Order: sequence, then C-alpha cells, then structure tokens
Amino acid sequence: MDVISVIRTKRDRGELSPEQIDWVIDAYTRGVVADEQMSALAMAILLNGMNRAEIKRWTAAMIASGERMNFDSLSRPTADKHSTGGVGDKITLPLAPLVAACGAAVPQLSGRGLGHTGGTLDKLESIPGWRALLSNEEMLHVLDTTGAVICAAGDGLAPADKKLYALRDVTGTVEAIPLIASSIMSKKIAEGTGSLVLDVKVGTGAFMKNIEDARELASTMVALGTDSGVKTIALLTDMSTPLGLTAGNALEIRESVEVLAGGGPSDVVELTLALAREMLDAAGIKDADPAKALADGSAMDVWRRMISAQGGDPDAALPVAREQHVVTAPSSGVLTRLDAYGVGVGAWRLGAGRARKEDPVQAGAGIELPAKPGDTVTAGQPLMTLHTDTPEKFEYALASLEGTYDIAPAGTAFSATPIVLDRIA
Amino acid sequence: MDVISVIRTKRDRGELSPEQIDWVIDAYTRGVVADEQMSALAMAILLNGMNRAEIKRWTAAMIASGERMNFDSLSRPTADKHSTGGVGDKITLPLAPLVAACGAAVPQLSGRGLGHTGGTLDKLESIPGWRALLSNEEMLHVLDTTGAVICAAGDGLAPADKKLYALRDVTGTVEAIPLIASSIMSKKIAEGTGSLVLDVKVGTGAFMKNIEDARELASTMVALGTDSGVKTIALLTDMSTPLGLTAGNALEIRESVEVLAGGGPSDVVELTLALAREMLDAAGIKDADPAKALADGSAMDVWRRMISAQGGDPDAALPVAREQHVVTAPSSGVLTRLDAYGVGVGAWRLGAGRARKEDPVQAGAGIELPAKPGDTVTAGQPLMTLHTDTPEKFEYALASLEGTYDIAPAGTAFSATPIVLDRIA
Repeated sequence: MDVISVIRTKRDRGELSPEQIDWVIDAYTRGVVADEQMSALAMAILLNGMNRAEIKRWTAAMIASGERMNFDSLSRPTADKHSTGGVGDKITLPLAPLVAACGAAVPQLSGRGLGHTGGTLDKLESIPGWRALLSNEEMLHVLDTTGAVICAAGDGLAPADKKLYALRDVTGTVEAIPLIASSIMSKKIAEGTGSLVLDVKVGTGAFMKNIEDARELASTMVALGTDSGVKTIALLTDMSTPLGLTAGNALEIRESVEVLAGGGPSDVVELTLALAREMLDAAGIKDADPAKALADGSAMDVWRRMISAQGGDPDAALPVAREQHVVTAPSSGVLTRLDAYGVGVGAWRLGAGRARKEDPVQAGAGIELPAKPGDTVTAGQPLMTLHTDTPEKFEYALASLEGTYDIAPAGTAFSATPIVLDRIA
Repeated sequence: MDVISVIRTKRDRGELSPEQIDWVIDAYTRGVVADEQMSALAMAILLNGMNRAEIKRWTAAMIASGERMNFDSLSRPTADKHSTGGVGDKITLPLAPLVAACGAAVPQLSGRGLGHTGGTLDKLESIPGWRALLSNEEMLHVLDTTGAVICAAGDGLAPADKKLYALRDVTGTVEAIPLIASSIMSKKIAEGTGSLVLDVKVGTGAFMKNIEDARELASTMVALGTDSGVKTIALLTDMSTPLGLTAGNALEIRESVEVLAGGGPSDVVELTLALAREMLDAAGIKDADPAKALADGSAMDVWRRMISAQGGDPDAALPVAREQHVVTAPSSGVLTRLDAYGVGVGAWRLGAGRARKEDPVQAGAGIELPAKPGDTVTAGQPLMTLHTDTPEKFEYALASLEGTYDIAPAGTAFSATPIVLDRIA
C-alpha cells in the first residue's frame, strides 16, 4: 500500500477500498503519511466526494485509531447532543442539566471555539474555578453523581480525527461533508453514548449555508450513528440570525442561567425544549416534562451541582468586559434582518473567539442584542452593545457589523423563520 | 493576504488574482506557506484547473523566485530542447552535439530520472569521470568552447519550482497540465534560451496518455514561451513503445554514440533529425544539414569535446551489468505491440531508476530490445535482455514485463504509428 496510489484513486474519482482507508488513517496517525499527503487527499475528497460505504469505513478507521469509552456502569440511559456550531449557540448549557433532570445521563464532550463560532468550553471557563479537563474517572464520577458532565474530550478518543481536524483547519478543507460527518461521528461513537441528537445548523452563521447541504450532512451522520448501534436523529435548525440575545462567553452563561431559572429569550427556550424532547425520546425516557423541569428549578439544581463538581462556583460573579460601545438604530421601523455571520465575526474580533488554537479568549467580550428580527425599533435605541477588554478593537469589530441588519418602515410585514426547519431520523 | 483564502478561491472554482499568485509562490518559497497548504492548493488546481492568464502569472512568479541567466555574451544563437519524458528517450544525447555542430549554442539544463522515465544526467554519469554539476561560469565556458553543454540546473534557477516539484511528486499532484507547463517553462525562460523546441510525449510511457491532453499541454507551453519572447514550438511524439532498442543508463549512451557515428536505430535517428531541424529553424539558422553532420562525424566531434570538457572520457569502456536474463519469444509471428510503460517499469526495477530522489542508480542496469513493433520474430529468439547488478530483482522486473507485448500470426498486417504525431507553433 502506498499513499500516492490512495490519493490518485480519489483524485481520479474512484472509490477508496476498505483496505486503502484503514491503511491511510492508521499511517497518518502514526506519522508514516505526511501532512502534505493527507491534505492533498482531503482536498480530493472535498472536491470528488466519498460514498456512504467509504464514509462509514473512514469513520470506523478513525474510531479504531484510539480508545473507546463506555457508560455501561451507569444506571441511567445516556443521551448526547452535538451542534455543528453557530452564533450565540449556548444551547448545551441549559440543555445538559435539563435532560439530566428528566432522567438521562448526559455526557457532553465539547470543544473550543475557532473562527466566528463560539465554544462551549470557552463559555464555561468564564465561571471562576470551573475545569474543562477531567480524567475519565472524574468524568464518570461527575456524570454518575450529577446526571450531566460537560468537559473536554480526552486525547485518547479518535486521535486520527484530532490530527486531521487541525490539518483541515489550515488547508481550506473544512467544508467537506464526508469529512465533517466522519469527524463528528467518530468522536460520538467512540465516546460510547447510547443515543445522539444532532443539531445541524443552516444559514449564514453556520458551516452549511443552504438546507440541501445541511440535509445531506444530517442524513449522512444519522446513517453512520444508526449503523453503529447509536440511536441517532437530527434536527435542522435556523442559523441565519444569532440564537438568543447574546454572543460571547460570560454573556452567554448569564443568558443560559436565565433559561434555567425559567426565563430567558424565547428562541433559546424553544430550541432547548425541542432538543430535550428528542434526547429523552431517543434515550427511551417517557413521561418526562422538560418544560416543567425548567419551571420548577430541578434543571437549575443539576446545573449548580454539575458546575460545583467541576470546581466552579455557580454563585460567583461573572467577568464583565472593561469597555462597552453601543450601536444605535439609525431609523425607526421593524428590524427585518440581523445576520448571524456578521455578529459572530464581530464578537470574535472583540476577543470572544480565537484566531489560532493557542490564543486566549476574553471571558467578558461579546455582543448583546437587545432587538431581534421582528421587533419594532425606534431611531436612537440600542441595537447592539459591544463588550471588550481591548477597546482598540471596536473599530475592527464595527467594520464586520456594517450591513448586518435591515430596518424596514413601521408596519412592514415580517414573517419569522421557524427555528426547527426539518427533522431527519 | 492569507493562504486559506487563496486555497478556497481555487477550491470553489474561482480565478486566482495576480496578487494571490505572486503572494502564494513567494510565501511558499520563503516557508511562510507550509507544504500541507501548498499541496491542498496543488490538488485544487489539478482538479479545477487554471486559465491561461493564471498559468502565465504562476510561471512568472516562479521565475521571479530566483535568478535569471542570459547567453547574450555568446556569438551563436541559443537553441534548447525539452522532452516531457519517456522510456528509452536518449534523444538529448545525440541531439545537443548535432545541433551545435550545425551552428547553434545548445544549453541543456537536464534532470535526473524519477519513476519509470530515465534521466539524461543519470545516463551521462555512466561515462567515467563525467560531471553533471557545473558552476554558471563553467557551464558558459563549455557552451562557448564546444557549442553544447548538458548539465544540472543550478539551485538559483526557479527555486519555487524546485520546491513545488518535490512536493507534487509525493502528493499525487504531478499530472496537472497547468503545473507541468509552468514548471517546465519557468526553468526554460529563467535559463535564458532564445528558442525552445518541446518534445511532448504521448502514450502509455508518457505522463500524457492521450493526444488531447498532450495538445493542451503543448499549446499552453508554446503560448507561455512565445509571450516571454522565447521562440517556442512543440512536436507531439509517440511514446506508446520505447524509443530505440535500449532503456537504461549506459545502454542508452552506447546507442546514442551509435547514432552519432552515423548508425543507430531508425526511430532514434528520425526523431533526432526532426527535432534538430526544428531547433535550427527556431534559432534562425538556415542551410544547415543535420543528416550530413551525423554522417560526416562533425556531431561526434562536438560530443567528444563536450564530454571531455565536463571531465568525461569519451573513449572509456562503459559499465556493464553483472548479470543478464533473456526473455524469448513464446511464438513466431509479427510483434504488434511492445508497451513503453511496462518496459520503463521493468528497467526501473532492475536498478536503472530510483524510487526516491536520494537513491543511487545502476549504470549498467536496463533492458535491451532486439525486436521492435512490426518486426517478424521466431519462437525462442530473444525479445528482451534484462541487465542488472542485483539479480534478485529479475523476478520483480519480469512481473512488470508480463503482458507488455503481443505477437500476432505471421502475415498479420501491421501499420506503424508515426513518431511525430503533430506540430504546434
């Protein structure tokens, strides 16, 4: 087996054999296949595709590159959720304790933000004392005692994916459906969850800009999960506008706690409940009422125990950015558009995100959005409040916010995009 | 400017801007763009192509990465030839002294073999004492005093191409017409020749397997040369069967000397004369008679002076491989096919070529071909004689020769493929 013949096969629109896939993933993990060879193969896959059989084998080979966990020792059924990433997407934060409060065990191995989408671990790290890095034993202990855990994936899980993801990130080969699907599913299957709900984002603030691509990605992942014995369903959800009224690390923690307290923005509540119902259904838990668990404080109780178990203080004051800048509405009328991508880039430029993996993030940086599409606004009222510790970035962030919203004359008809666009099982 | 946006432009079938091309070639040469980024871009170029304007700019950027030579100090017009590489393609060896004998200055910056095609420098190094590596001053001196020089290109000439070529070789991105054309032409234009004749090979033993691709490559290179003020023409020539009766280093030197002595295989003589006439015409030399220069020994005189000037002994005995193995004809009839690729791989496996750049080659290894397509053969007569210093490789080489020839019943009509298939100016 040699790598050039594998690259040529895909370059010339052929189908990779199971032996070629097993060999190239293993050889890349061991460093026998070089980065420059794998990136050429990744580009060929991006442009020429892989069929379902190839994607399945590719995923299996990435799982086989590392260890597999299992949650068989737990008394509760496991339910996991994965989002393909969006702007203001803090759903994991209220969702994990909520589903745990309803009787499932929720192991959320999460990631950090890169580019304009935020990362769940970055958000949680704005809580003083909270630790993302747990040993497998600590993770199982938190999960067993509180019902939920949100932590970083260990190095032993799908190391081939870890290496390949870092490579794709610097070689323009992120946006390949076979590679996105196998990357997500290799980690989720290796993690050992019994059921999985995928939140596939569609719109300007998501990797998938149109619903056809999102549907293809979702059905690919559902098939991969189902074939591996993981009960998997996907919701396609709107990411043309930010979720909720905040984008930024501590800002989103605050908003999530509001949801757990029974309040919070209606779109965040709606999506949290929709995903919670799917997770409970996939885990085989009947008769649970997630809306009640939000209202009666039981979800909040799990949140507080979970944060404490990972060293965090749920009562500590959250960091606040040193400087603010308010963008006001230039005219009165109806806000008809507020673009997720522009807001995501703006928050990132303010310091909420990172340009390179090793960069730090600012806990307090981000954007508050007092008005959402469909709201009536008055000239001079705040539209966005920018937060940062580095005010010299205001200008740079404001540039990304130009043209991100439209205000139409008062009385203009507005029809909201539904949050859940489709369901694939 | 950042490399991911450049990769994405080509990945998404866009046109690279002049600024993107200049930047990425310069940044890659300086090591700012990493190998894994350039190989992803090379694969995107292979699959999505470049238009003529992009190829022209890409070539100019590679020329600008290094020094330019010029031959203005010479009293004679310069004429250069480049072959895209084939099996048994020793034409440069008799051609350079022949064209010099007819009045041109012939600077042949040549390469080494990689894969199944041989390298001119490897062949010449089988002559005891001969040196491929000359300083610019030595090169000009040999050219000025003998009329011809065949040597390695200096490190200063198009270093971007040198780096990119080595990368393409290990990443399955060699077979891209825009990259092949810009690689060849950047070196030839930087070298400073006044005229250039391209021998674009077509067939199983060539990079271009069909005439449409070869024509596209040829016309791309002719346009690049012409635009840069180099009088450039291309011949498309057959490489479905090996040229001449030998493939291997010392074996091909012997055959080339036979041609210079007025003998040699008719196909080698025919192609040598066709290319010589084109080179003389492109250099503006009228009234020269290359056939006469072969017959009267004047080409041989230049050869001997050129070999001596580079430290070689033109009278020294050439190396002979330690072991031989004869493949005989299994039946009597007409040899209707003798495949260039199979013979090339066989010679390579016997030790005539190298698998990696740093490998040594065997001077004596290779294959003699007593019969050519169209010849009548008798059962039991030698079809191929294999030469090697490493007889344990016979079996490996013989495997590549299986199915490389067809013998049809005596009397079967055979129409030979012409050597020169087309001319593009």
